[in-house]
Amino acid sequence: MYKREGTEYRSWLQFDHIQDVTVSENYIPYLKHILLGVESPVMLSAKEELVNGISSMFSINLSESRKVEPSTIFLGTLRSHEEFQEYIDLSLELELNEDGYVIKTDENNCIFIIGKTDKGVLYGVFHFLRLIQTHRSLPTIDFIENPKNQIRMLNEWDNMDGSVERGYAGNSLFFEENRFVGDWNRIKDYARMLSSVGINAIAFNNVNVHEQETKLITPEFLPDVAKVAEIFGAYGIQTFLSINYASPIQLGGLDTADPLDEKVRQWWKDKAKEIYHYIPDFGGVLVKADSEHRPGPFTYNRTHADGSNMLAEALEPFGGIVLWRCFVYNCLQDWRDRSTDRARAAYDHFKPLDGQFHDNVVLQIKNGPMDFQVREGVSPLFGAMPNTNQVLEFQVAQEYTGQQRHLCYLIPQWKEVLDFDTYANGPGTPVKSVVDGSQFPYKYCGITAVSNSGNDENWTGHTLAQANLFGYGRLTWDPDLSSEEITEEWVEATFGTDPEVVKEIKEMLLGSWRTYENYTSPLGVGWMVNPSHHYGPNVDGYEYDVWGTYHFADWKGIGVDRTIATGTGFTGQYFQENTDLYENLDTCPDELLLFFHHVPYTHQLKSGKTVIQHIYDTHFEGVEQVEKLKERWVALESKIDSDRFKSVLERLEHQVEHSKEWRDIINTYFYRKSGIPDEQNRRIY
Amino acid sequence: MYKREGTEYRSWLQFDHIQDVTVSENYIPYLKHILLGVESPVMLSAKEELVNGISSMFSINLSESRKVEPSTIFLGTLRSHEEFQEYIDLSLELELNEDGYVIKTDENNCIFIIGKTDKGVLYGVFHFLRLIQTHRSLPTIDFIENPKNQIRMLNEWDNMDGSVERGYAGNSLFFEENRFVGDWNRIKDYARMLSSVGINAIAFNNVNVHEQETKLITPEFLPDVAKVAEIFGAYGIQTFLSINYASPIQLGGLDTADPLDEKVRQWWKDKAKEIYHYIPDFGGVLVKADSEHRPGPFTYNRTHADGSNMLAEALEPFGGIVLWRCFVYNCLQDWRDRSTDRARAAYDHFKPLDGQFHDNVVLQIKNGPMDFQVREGVSPLFGAMPNTNQVLEFQVAQEYTGQQRHLCYLIPQWKEVLDFDTYANGPGTPVKSVVDGSQFPYKYCGITAVSNSGNDENWTGHTLAQANLFGYGRLTWDPDLSSEEITEEWVEATFGTDPEVVKEIKEMLLGSWRTYENYTSPLGVGWMVNPSHHYGPNVDGYEYDVWGTYHFADWKGIGVDRTIATGTGFTGQYFQENTDLYENLDTCPDELLLFFHHVPYTHQLKSGKTVIQHIYDTHFEGVEQVEKLKERWVALESKIDSDRFKSVLERLEHQVEHSKEWRDIINTYFYRKSGIPDEQNRRIY
Repeated sequence: MYKREGTEYRSWLQFDHIQDVTVSENYIPYLKHILLGVESPVMLSAKEELVNGISSMFSINLSESRKVEPSTIFLGTLRSHEEFQEYIDLSLELELNEDGYVIKTDENNCIFIIGKTDKGVLYGVFHFLRLIQTHRSLPTIDFIENPKNQIRMLNEWDNMDGSVERGYAGNSLFFEENRFVGDWNRIKDYARMLSSVGINAIAFNNVNVHEQETKLITPEFLPDVAKVAEIFGAYGIQTFLSINYASPIQLGGLDTADPLDEKVRQWWKDKAKEIYHYIPDFGGVLVKADSEHRPGPFTYNRTHADGSNMLAEALEPFGGIVLWRCFVYNCLQDWRDRSTDRARAAYDHFKPLDGQFHDNVVLQIKNGPMDFQVREGVSPLFGAMPNTNQVLEFQVAQEYTGQQRHLCYLIPQWKEVLDFDTYANGPGTPVKSVVDGSQFPYKYCGITAVSNSGNDENWTGHTLAQANLFGYGRLTWDPDLSSEEITEEWVEATFGTDPEVVKEIKEMLLGSWRTYENYTSPLGVGWMVNPSHHYGPNVDGYEYDVWGTYHFADWKGIGVDRTIATGTGFTGQYFQENTDLYENLDTCPDELLLFFHHVPYTHQLKSGKTVIQHIYDTHFEGVEQVEKLKERWVALESKIDSDRFKSVLERLEHQVEHSKEWRDIINTYFYRKSGIPDEQNRRIY
Repeated sequence: MYKREGTEYRSWLQFDHIQDVTVSENYIPYLKHILLGVESPVMLSAKEELVNGISSMFSINLSESRKVEPSTIFLGTLRSHEEFQEYIDLSLELELNEDGYVIKTDENNCIFIIGKTDKGVLYGVFHFLRLIQTHRSLPTIDFIENPKNQIRMLNEWDNMDGSVERGYAGNSLFFEENRFVGDWNRIKDYARMLSSVGINAIAFNNVNVHEQETKLITPEFLPDVAKVAEIFGAYGIQTFLSINYASPIQLGGLDTADPLDEKVRQWWKDKAKEIYHYIPDFGGVLVKADSEHRPGPFTYNRTHADGSNMLAEALEPFGGIVLWRCFVYNCLQDWRDRSTDRARAAYDHFKPLDGQFHDNVVLQIKNGPMDFQVREGVSPLFGAMPNTNQVLEFQVAQEYTGQQRHLCYLIPQWKEVLDFDTYANGPGTPVKSVVDGSQFPYKYCGITAVSNSGNDENWTGHTLAQANLFGYGRLTWDPDLSSEEITEEWVEATFGTDPEVVKEIKEMLLGSWRTYENYTSPLGVGWMVNPSHHYGPNVDGYEYDVWGTYHFADWKGIGVDRTIATGTGFTGQYFQENTDLYENLDTCPDELLLFFHHVPYTHQLKSGKTVIQHIYDTHFEGVEQVEKLKERWVALESKIDSDRFKSVLERLEHQVEHSKEWRDIINTYFYRKSGIPDEQNRRIY
């Protein structure tokens, strides 16, 4: 099936033997003993990772020591055994947060990796291994690391039949044929990958909870869930489940799921007790309610506060939390109705409820108000609910960005979202400062994302899409890392430190989102994909449908008028500075022009080009850029192992062809509609 | 599951008790005894049908007689027992064809139903019962009936998993869960329906033969096939199977299916012998080869003559025939390539092979060169291959004509095809005269069709779609029957003879095809449906796809230029008179204008309207017509049993809503593209 020892499988945890003597000489003096200051499943993972990593890179087997002698790597927590307290600077208590750690060396060639908790130690070990992988030099080490976000989560969208909704890397790692796969080693390897980049929470079943998955919270499956939770737990990752809001009916035989009904409330309380009996460290639940035909409190004329608070009360005694998705909108819209605007929906539904949610409810908000498009505005909900916990939801799965067959590296997109100034507390209130809890007194907050992994040997379908998973984790840990830093780390850990390889792959990745945007949906208008599976160009694919996703192109122009003055008023959901920015055609950024305005094809962009010429130019350019991507990769052939070289090349070849489809269909569509020829007279059909 | 006694189930074989005394008095004197001149399974079916029908309509149990006494219905063949030869006019030998019969009365109130073979008797019995159902008066009876077509066939598209490809009436009657359903009674009832309208052949598995269905010709399933064949056989219907051209590989373990390979030829010979061992009256095979990813002789650089002749040779010793579909085209076309024309494909592939086929090979040609659109040209292959057997293929299943959720009665469409003058033997060579064998010395010919039935209680999803199945059978028997005659027969047999009911339903049916055309794809251009499932409007659904199905609409105009002068040259495939007719914009009929020409939206039709105004007008009109259909049906409420009234009403209500979707999407699409407003300023979005 797959080769655990293959380069594809090992992702960024390659730990290749260090060939460079200057590098190994730098490290070897430190690598003799290992000493654990405390034992726990997480500490044992930390030890195992360290021992295996060192063995793999240096062929050195660290020997276990009982005391701190020269050349010892000491792994300890602030609460390590008393006998080791002399090695621990307790003033760190003030500097480290729950998952933070310190790494430092001393004059006896010892290395101290100290966490506030055992999880910090594990993160420190992975950090230390990454330093070696990326050939950082050792003597300079003495630093404190704290993750900026408290919740650093992944949502798997796995169904128990083995499929993955919006999965582009094979079938589920967890399920097949309506039961658990039982390949616990692979799940452990997945936990290692996630933990190594700081992920600390996972919900592993699809937010669309169908009949079989509803039963995950019953004794039929809870022992298996507990097994998975144990594996993740040993890597510091807390397990959550997506639940079916109508469970009291389906599982409990009740005739209602009304959140204010006493029987329903009691059912959930009993259910929470049962779940925690099996999984004492269970994280909580993830809920998609009243969205795209999923059940929810609206059925009973209750609010989303009523619905989520009921669950929160049930989980509260056990320390569990409720992640409640804000992706709620009318998915049976009449395309003829131009006043309804799906972009408004989340804000319209949730903003009025600010302050009504329990403090263990967290609203989960997609980065944009639509749905993970290649380009869209940032959700105006960020910062708009000072009294309600928020997490930001990204999509690592490339649903609308090439489905892991196209190279589209999303870190630069996510950076833009994180750095977007909401003005919630005046200038300088970026999204990242909202969701990391530094603006408002959130009890729970952070970042979550739809995962891009599956049971393909390389985890992510496209080997280079591993970079999105890696980068996502790194960004949740520290949103201030630059795209360049993250990319370089990933390339070095994955493909080694050859400068040409690093430079080329790094540049390939960093430009790929813009390239993808160039040959797909222009100027922020989004969609233009085939319905249902969302792959490939179809300009009118969603134009006459019920999903609220339109471009309104006619013979004169294109775009969605979301202004207050003449449109749907969506711009008014932002804080004033952003309202002004987007409302005004002169200040609205080009890349979001058609997201906020309907303009003639002859409208002149800030670039000086007309909209129509921009469309033609970017689409021709996009294909040329993809061809360049392929050329650059081909040039690396001698420096990349053949498994990865070939699999990436195959995808790039497909991308070249498929980007031409995109180019030609989009250009032809707009030429046939506008009648305006390309200034450069290139081939349009 | 379904009520065998329900009005839905009984379709046109209602045989309601005759309430009208003047009618029953007319018949009763004749209805006392029944006498069979010969015994066979088919004769026993004839007797059973007659006895049951008379019992049901008159509450009279015909008693069996041993001799022709007064008030006897005598069922006999030209080869009846010698003792009855005095009642048989042997000069009929010259007047009756294989399935023909005579019905006449004599002065002793006897009725003679005499066939050349037992099948003729069965058809005669059904005819006689229909006369009663439709209250035709008796003393005038003395006539000879011969079917005009030799092959009168249905192709079921049933898969062994129980699905029906392009099935709109529930699951398969034959299969479920990869085996036979085993409801032999229902299959018998189906045989009764088909036989009653003259169908004499059936292939009951999908022409797309997948892995499991390939095994139908193995001992694992041949006993079940034989059982089905026995049931159909007793109703004069011969059983065929669709086969997988690559069977020698899949079943036989050979490494090739090359038709000129001796091993392959022997394999098929042995296979034929095996099949006929189980089913001595097996009809033969139906083959879709080298089409839409099905295997075929092209794989081995052989022609379709090579491929079909090999099978023909294997079947020939047993009297079997090969139905070979001409639906062969490039289904991976590049939409950018405007010179390739799918409409040309069948003619280009097959015409050059005329004369190379064995005389038990029959080419199966769809009515149009594309694929069962609401309107398209007639296939130019008809009459173009004087030395090759041909059958015409219709689609009773309403794949592109509302999928049995919309009312779309197709008899008028089929009549147009049958009456289309090919000019193959000069003026007056209509398609019907080609496929009935009167133009060329075909050994086998006739009409076949994709069936519209399934396991819905009413067989056809839409109860009024039963009329398409009924009418199809009647037309294969006699293409000269008028649409009006057929429709009246069906309504009377199905809903009784109330004049208002007959008039209203007849008119509803007769106008429904044109109505459907009005609100869907205009002026012969076709498609504009959602890809894959083909339901509902999507103007660009196939515009940028690989299927060769384009409309080329731009800001100026629309249509496919298939002329010799400036287009794909498809018009040149017709005989000269039709080439001239279609080549010339002035003579090309309006309803096929966009099938043959690309014209500006402002082009004036023969109706005086511009193309764009025609589109707007017909689409508004079409919806109004559907609303009228519903009104007419509602007005019949007191005269229709509630089961059928409600089920039809439900579909008409859907049709009203869905036709508005069609109207608005088509009109909006063309308004947004052309910028030309509706002269009447109606609402376009």
